[in-house]
Amino acid sequence: MQHMQQRQQMQPAGPPSPSCSSTSDCFPLIIHRSAAECGSETSAEPEKHEVRAENSPTDLFRMRSIVSFYVCFLLCLGLGVSCVVCVCLWNKQWRGGFAWDGSPKQFNWHPVLMVTGLIVLYGNGAVLYRVPLTWGQNKLPWKLLHAAVMLLALVLSVVGLCAVFDFHNAKNTPNLYSLHSWIGIAATALFAMQWVLGLAVFLVPCSPISLRKLLKPVHVWFGGSILSLSIVACISGINEKLFFALKRNTSGTQPYSKLPPEAVLGNTLGVLIVAFGLVVLKILSNPKWQRPDSRPEDTAYTPLFQEENE
Amino acid sequence: MQHMQQRQQMQPAGPPSPSCSSTSDCFPLIIHRSAAECGSETSAEPEKHEVRAENSPTDLFRMRSIVSFYVCFLLCLGLGVSCVVCVCLWNKQWRGGFAWDGSPKQFNWHPVLMVTGLIVLYGNGAVLYRVPLTWGQNKLPWKLLHAAVMLLALVLSVVGLCAVFDFHNAKNTPNLYSLHSWIGIAATALFAMQWVLGLAVFLVPCSPISLRKLLKPVHVWFGGSILSLSIVACISGINEKLFFALKRNTSGTQPYSKLPPEAVLGNTLGVLIVAFGLVVLKILSNPKWQRPDSRPEDTAYTPLFQEENE
Repeated sequence: MQHMQQRQQMQPAGPPSPSCSSTSDCFPLIIHRSAAECGSETSAEPEKHEVRAENSPTDLFRMRSIVSFYVCFLLCLGLGVSCVVCVCLWNKQWRGGFAWDGSPKQFNWHPVLMVTGLIVLYGNGAVLYRVPLTWGQNKLPWKLLHAAVMLLALVLSVVGLCAVFDFHNAKNTPNLYSLHSWIGIAATALFAMQWVLGLAVFLVPCSPISLRKLLKPVHVWFGGSILSLSIVACISGINEKLFFALKRNTSGTQPYSKLPPEAVLGNTLGVLIVAFGLVVLKILSNPKWQRPDSRPEDTAYTPLFQEENE
Repeated sequence: MQHMQQRQQMQPAGPPSPSCSSTSDCFPLIIHRSAAECGSETSAEPEKHEVRAENSPTDLFRMRSIVSFYVCFLLCLGLGVSCVVCVCLWNKQWRGGFAWDGSPKQFNWHPVLMVTGLIVLYGNGAVLYRVPLTWGQNKLPWKLLHAAVMLLALVLSVVGLCAVFDFHNAKNTPNLYSLHSWIGIAATALFAMQWVLGLAVFLVPCSPISLRKLLKPVHVWFGGSILSLSIVACISGINEKLFFALKRNTSGTQPYSKLPPEAVLGNTLGVLIVAFGLVVLKILSNPKWQRPDSRPEDTAYTPLFQEENE
């Protein structure tokens, strides 16, 4: 912790290097607070505030980085909202709405809750730490918000699974035989494990810093992999559902192969989910957009790495 | 180029820093050649050779990085071979084999060629540059091999698409209506664009270095996204095929819901494809395993970035 404070205080006053090796280097217009606040939940009050507003070409380069982040973030929010609207509209308008009585109306909760929980809330919860606005602030509230959003996502996903299990059981249909179900259940189970391990390692105060350092890249990588699995499960599920629902000469609907409006809406939902996932994974994979206390160049060249990096 | 040579020659003889800022830092046991050879296709003969074999703790740390890379790489090869074996076995043993006559036997080429081309060859072609064995050598032959593997992958994918279009046309079934087909055709079209742009930008000698620098991260990111799209398309396709092929009371087969051996094989193929994709994306996303001439810390702190980084 001492090292962190010293490091922050010893930053040169001149223009930062093009390598963007600290928060202020990449985002010079954000408010600087004490190092104790940035990256640790044990901090108390801010120690110093400083606002820099430079107009050098390097600053313009950094400003472009902020702008491109927010473009991606807004795209992520917009695509997420569009996914939820599409999946609700599809099941409300074309599939008869919602109930919890073992009927097909109960099944309709499954796509709505999985898309909302396992894709949209999960994706937005994952990119929370990347928002530069949060970087000058105490990490703990953001950590709690990350955990809370992920818990809500997990609860919705589990209820979404219950909806389909109940529906299958009411119809005496076997569960968990399709490839879609294998990948979907794996994604949800890994998500539950990830959440519990995340709580134990990154939120319980007594967990050792060395363990946090060791498991943080694993946590981040598993996070992205779980999102990828969820997208694969959702797309295969939507594809399967459209083939089941839009059969030739069934209840007066046009077959899937004629691309009736419902099919176009379902396909569009799939495309939106894939686009949302790619934007989230893009945000997660860009090292320039990582919260600075976890960026490799901040940890590899300073004693900070030896003391705290979680 | 001069900068690159100076930089290489001016490397300190002492033990490398823990930040792994050059090839030799991360992989001290590889043979050093001239900078002209590493990262540029314009080199001629090797200028100097040097073999270092140190046993400091830092070297052990780096050796662990090499070992973990090769574990991932072998996993990638093993999973790739398993995918090809599974998809061939499934279509040969359970789906009646192969032909090119508009019959279902022609359709069988579709999964085989898409999995082999768009997933396995594509994934292996993508991680070629990450193999440390290639780092001390002239980049051009590896660039040509990368382009050749990707071209073969693209040709197989296009033939795989022709197989299903021909089959549909022979049966008067509409093309490109399902979500699976939308995502699959998008993946193949983007792959074709990526290959042509890659050729024009990274292989045609007259393309400017500044353009290569600008487009390289875009090329890498699109590469990973195309693989993700391909995996989504494959999983939804296998899921759809198993539902179509394993219907109740059809041609004496057990339904999908009873999980007959064919269903288990198909689901296993899907799981193997997802595992293969995650390993490839893991290799691509690890900055420690990037070919050094393109690693951010090599380009951000030296004039090299201003002259050549592709």
